[in-house]
Amino acid sequence: MKNFIGQTIEFKNKPKIIGNYSIVGPKEGKGHFGKFFHCVMDNDRFDEKTYEKAEKKMIEKALSGAIKSAGLKPEKIDLFLAGDLLNQIISSSYAARSFNVPYLGLFGACSTMAESLAIGSCFIDGKYFDTVACATVSHFSTAERQFRFPLELGNQRPPTSQWTATASGCSILSLKGKGPYVSMATFGKVTDFGIHDVNNMGAAMAPAAMNTLVSHFTDTKTKPDDYDLIITGDLGKIGSEILIDLMEDKGYVLGINYCDCGQMIYRRRQKPLMGGSGCGCSASILNSFFIEKLRKRVYKKILYMATGALLSTTATQQGESIPGIAHAVVIEN
Amino acid sequence: MKNFIGQTIEFKNKPKIIGNYSIVGPKEGKGHFGKFFHCVMDNDRFDEKTYEKAEKKMIEKALSGAIKSAGLKPEKIDLFLAGDLLNQIISSSYAARSFNVPYLGLFGACSTMAESLAIGSCFIDGKYFDTVACATVSHFSTAERQFRFPLELGNQRPPTSQWTATASGCSILSLKGKGPYVSMATFGKVTDFGIHDVNNMGAAMAPAAMNTLVSHFTDTKTKPDDYDLIITGDLGKIGSEILIDLMEDKGYVLGINYCDCGQMIYRRRQKPLMGGSGCGCSASILNSFFIEKLRKRVYKKILYMATGALLSTTATQQGESIPGIAHAVVIEN
Repeated sequence: MKNFIGQTIEFKNKPKIIGNYSIVGPKEGKGHFGKFFHCVMDNDRFDEKTYEKAEKKMIEKALSGAIKSAGLKPEKIDLFLAGDLLNQIISSSYAARSFNVPYLGLFGACSTMAESLAIGSCFIDGKYFDTVACATVSHFSTAERQFRFPLELGNQRPPTSQWTATASGCSILSLKGKGPYVSMATFGKVTDFGIHDVNNMGAAMAPAAMNTLVSHFTDTKTKPDDYDLIITGDLGKIGSEILIDLMEDKGYVLGINYCDCGQMIYRRRQKPLMGGSGCGCSASILNSFFIEKLRKRVYKKILYMATGALLSTTATQQGESIPGIAHAVVIEN
Repeated sequence: MKNFIGQTIEFKNKPKIIGNYSIVGPKEGKGHFGKFFHCVMDNDRFDEKTYEKAEKKMIEKALSGAIKSAGLKPEKIDLFLAGDLLNQIISSSYAARSFNVPYLGLFGACSTMAESLAIGSCFIDGKYFDTVACATVSHFSTAERQFRFPLELGNQRPPTSQWTATASGCSILSLKGKGPYVSMATFGKVTDFGIHDVNNMGAAMAPAAMNTLVSHFTDTKTKPDDYDLIITGDLGKIGSEILIDLMEDKGYVLGINYCDCGQMIYRRRQKPLMGGSGCGCSASILNSFFIEKLRKRVYKKILYMATGALLSTTATQQGESIPGIAHAVVIEN
């Protein structure tokens, strides 16, 4: 018997999130979720020589922290699934070097946390592995200098721009142990509404979010009210508003149970403009606040959908528009 | 019951390769496998404005060609698994935009073909999807200008260097239909023996190849002679020799049934130095020559292991050594 309908897989064996960890930078630590993160760094460089080395150290700490929180030893991890925003996802790959475990590199831009959880849940549900670690990381300073301008230039940010969160999150999946479980995963399609403005990622990613969300509701015959929370990863203020409008056009009203991690991570006074972004943004909030609230059964069923913009500087220089993608997982307890 | 031992999964339902396609550049077309490739491009730009757009068009053609060879329509593909060497894997993601199917982006450098087949086989074996497309692409000119120097500089290549193949390959996996099947997959660990020379990828990747190969033989209680062929992806001449030595140190003699795609793709007179590289190199040969020979039962059981070097220019500039990874799949008929 097949385990999927349309783009959505239902996991019969209920892969559980038995461990989780989050680590963020000082700015994120001063935001709304500050007290929920497991670790707030003293400085953005994390006492390393470069921001890239700091980013690698962050995902290493997220992985080892999550393994510890699951009560396991590193050698018990059968597979490490990770990705990040840097060229050739060096943060993830170099972190994997430090842990002597099989590794699969992923690239889904800011959708990576959901992508890794979706793939990892298949591996666990199908009993292909016993214990899988899923992680991602992003860093404001590495992203700025790779995708935009050297920080030293002090460029002004346009009002539609988002702030790449310095953050990392990791989840450990297994059938053994306790924790909320991943009940479903919806794999997204690349969607492009022709946005060319690299300073408006929310607008570029909202159509992909709509596409995956509509597919999810259709495949599972559910509606927004069936979830305690519908959480998007990093559409930001304008992107979330576009998503709400697009969904209404499709006949789905996203109510007060809808929220966006990018919009929530910083306080207004921190001037994040449209909010946070970067794959670590929603990964760190999911792996702290949301999983804790699921554990305490404050929420019983959430839909977590991370969205990614699949552009590169080369693609943009060659006149390409910005394609988006969104993957979703349903987590229950 | 669990489906894995150590790093190796055994697929009980035998996911079949029901379609395959390969496309290469003019230089590769003049190499040893020229007559086996499904399409040899007239020019490296594939009639596009930029090499990057050519690379995207190549993987699009590989995907549509493989779908056609499986006798399917594009809408029958449940999932597209792909990756490439470009920053933010734009060739794969922009190609996925052209096909209205769910997409997961992967990054394993030159190990991507094996990574996608290994993940795809899990999805098919576990009945998470009916039909999965696995693909990768590389292009000499996009890789040179991204990782090394502008072509216009005409830099001299050191003798240990390899030539990134302009090539793409795609396989369609399904339980329904005919074709050779993937019987096992071994997921590799990141391995780093401290090589810093970015012009000697073979030496950087050989330890990872050894690591995965030893794990595979240990997990499956097999030895090199149990396979008609053991094929590595793109270690090149020096890398293959290092692998043979490393394996001998571990007690395994790789005999005449061992070959390397990088070493074989070009003729000696084409001056490829250590041979070909790039994720498309072994992907194009696997999806032409080897799958055809498996179909005709010239070979009955092959081990295909693609190897990747997980560096980036930023990592190298910051003094990092080059970690390697290798994933393997066993294909039988």
